[in-house]
Amino acid sequence: MKIRSVLSAAVLAVATTFASTQALAQEKFTLRLAETWGPNFPIFGDTTKNFAKLVEEMSDGRLRIRIDSSNKHKAPFGVFDMVKAGQYDMGHSASYYWKGKVPETLFFTSMPFGMTAIEQYAWFYYGDGMELMQEVYAPQNMLSFPGGNTGIQMGGWFRKEIKSLDDLQGLKMRIPGFAGEVFAEVGVSPTNIPPGELYTALERNTIDAVEWVGPALDLRLGFQQIADYYYTGWHEPATELQYLVNKKTWEKLPSDLQTILKTAMRVSAYDMLVLSQHENAKAWANIKKEYPDVQIKNFPEDVFQAMYDANKKLLKEAAGKNDLAKRIVESQEEYLEKTRAYTDISERAYLNTMAEVE
Amino acid sequence: MKIRSVLSAAVLAVATTFASTQALAQEKFTLRLAETWGPNFPIFGDTTKNFAKLVEEMSDGRLRIRIDSSNKHKAPFGVFDMVKAGQYDMGHSASYYWKGKVPETLFFTSMPFGMTAIEQYAWFYYGDGMELMQEVYAPQNMLSFPGGNTGIQMGGWFRKEIKSLDDLQGLKMRIPGFAGEVFAEVGVSPTNIPPGELYTALERNTIDAVEWVGPALDLRLGFQQIADYYYTGWHEPATELQYLVNKKTWEKLPSDLQTILKTAMRVSAYDMLVLSQHENAKAWANIKKEYPDVQIKNFPEDVFQAMYDANKKLLKEAAGKNDLAKRIVESQEEYLEKTRAYTDISERAYLNTMAEVE
Repeated sequence: MKIRSVLSAAVLAVATTFASTQALAQEKFTLRLAETWGPNFPIFGDTTKNFAKLVEEMSDGRLRIRIDSSNKHKAPFGVFDMVKAGQYDMGHSASYYWKGKVPETLFFTSMPFGMTAIEQYAWFYYGDGMELMQEVYAPQNMLSFPGGNTGIQMGGWFRKEIKSLDDLQGLKMRIPGFAGEVFAEVGVSPTNIPPGELYTALERNTIDAVEWVGPALDLRLGFQQIADYYYTGWHEPATELQYLVNKKTWEKLPSDLQTILKTAMRVSAYDMLVLSQHENAKAWANIKKEYPDVQIKNFPEDVFQAMYDANKKLLKEAAGKNDLAKRIVESQEEYLEKTRAYTDISERAYLNTMAEVE
Repeated sequence: MKIRSVLSAAVLAVATTFASTQALAQEKFTLRLAETWGPNFPIFGDTTKNFAKLVEEMSDGRLRIRIDSSNKHKAPFGVFDMVKAGQYDMGHSASYYWKGKVPETLFFTSMPFGMTAIEQYAWFYYGDGMELMQEVYAPQNMLSFPGGNTGIQMGGWFRKEIKSLDDLQGLKMRIPGFAGEVFAEVGVSPTNIPPGELYTALERNTIDAVEWVGPALDLRLGFQQIADYYYTGWHEPATELQYLVNKKTWEKLPSDLQTILKTAMRVSAYDMLVLSQHENAKAWANIKKEYPDVQIKNFPEDVFQAMYDANKKLLKEAAGKNDLAKRIVESQEEYLEKTRAYTDISERAYLNTMAEVE
């Protein structure tokens, strides 16, 4: 008896020492993530699932992500507040949704006539982008990271062809946000309508035109059945979604798990750009085959120029609000000028060359 | 004594059990990576360093990468053989260097008049690319992964303007590989000259033109000082470097470290594309400012068309070699057609629009 009891105590002591060392190294975390999108939302939802899988596999189960879609938390546009308050550890959404709360959040998704996805990633990671974004989010007790890019969004579906600026006067169009404000400046009446009602609204001429995303997501809503003119994009050339992380959550993670989290966010964001290209190409091939009446159109030059000028004016107003807004707008303008000069002699020149040979 | 000896044995047994569990979970690995490039090679070398840092941090030091540049292993083009033989666990190089050993390796870097970087990543990850690449490398006991993209390579520096196909006849140009073969078909004499001798060769008219990479890397070799015509690219629209992994090395890693390794390769490859955009834009701005005589030129239409036709002919020959080559070429052609149709209405349309407004 005596031997056994000493032995048990000793074994227990040794076991405790090992267990606590291991517990420290192996502490497990589950982060709750609220996404703005509904369950199984294509491409966007694939991105968070891809992210969660990578985190779990790389950490060998020490870090897990539990994703709640909007059907669960019932607050698609409450993600900012919920992550800020710590009700959720993370969010997946888009920065420009928060411009009513913090005006400078507007600049970290995509700007009309702005950078393309690769140009914008270069601004985020090798220019001043990430630093400026953290400066905007730090007072909100959150960190923000790029969360996946849609690529260039299409200019929208129109039931009548737009031949000049005149055709835009009084035109009722679903187009939200800053791009809607730009359209309003050139005579359009922007309206906001819930996604589920868009098709019927367009069919019944409650609206004349609708901007959504691009072929892959547009195809599912069926606009190609009732509108023949599909316009090329200008207003969101590189829509970047967003991962939000509560600062306290971030700080409690050991550094290896922080790097795992950060890397999984970064790679899943890049992957979304690539998946968008894949899915959009597939959907566009389908539209061309099954809806041969659909025509691709560029807005006429006078329309583009008017929108470009309106955008400049609104951007100047936005930049005038405070020093931080001014620094962000200037950083983007300066970066865009330099990076586009190179894109013009590389990507643009090549694509134009390829369009000429046969 | 009796109590102590029983106790020691028991403690030892418990300690051994815990230690071996921990040893299994915490086994450490160091992988040796041979890169084709010299030490501190810009952009390419940043990619392997970025990769190694991510691997070490995410694994909390359980997996480390030791990078040997070509000054160490003395065999820049021996990377394939060294990784295959297990002398190195990993390599960082480019697949098309191995076409003399395994002809089908040619197709996994970039093809003339082929896909752009995002299009090609989409083919790799969401089309058949990765599967076909592993099929090519499996018999070599290696796995191959995308290793970083340069973006569209420039068409080269010419001392005289190319006004028509006639100007290419007998022109001596440094341009290696498949693109060199295409150029040869239209009358150029392709030569290969070590990088260190290129500037002098161009200056002394030993060669008339030189193709290297793009502004960031070209600037360092100084061609802008002695050649005024900088041609846009067609021959390597998306040069993707390559990580090679020895199959036995791969198989001995636990699955969490496999995912860490794979994710670090994937994100560092994407990062290289973004860094290339950043560095090329910076370098191009410098060239424009400091060398105002440098002019950007597109090859004339008849030259492009002749090269396009020559490329088609050579590609058909390459595809005819065996069934695997045929399947790869067909997969790429089919994918390119679909993905480019979408790129034309998105990226190309947008960039052209932006070039018109002011």
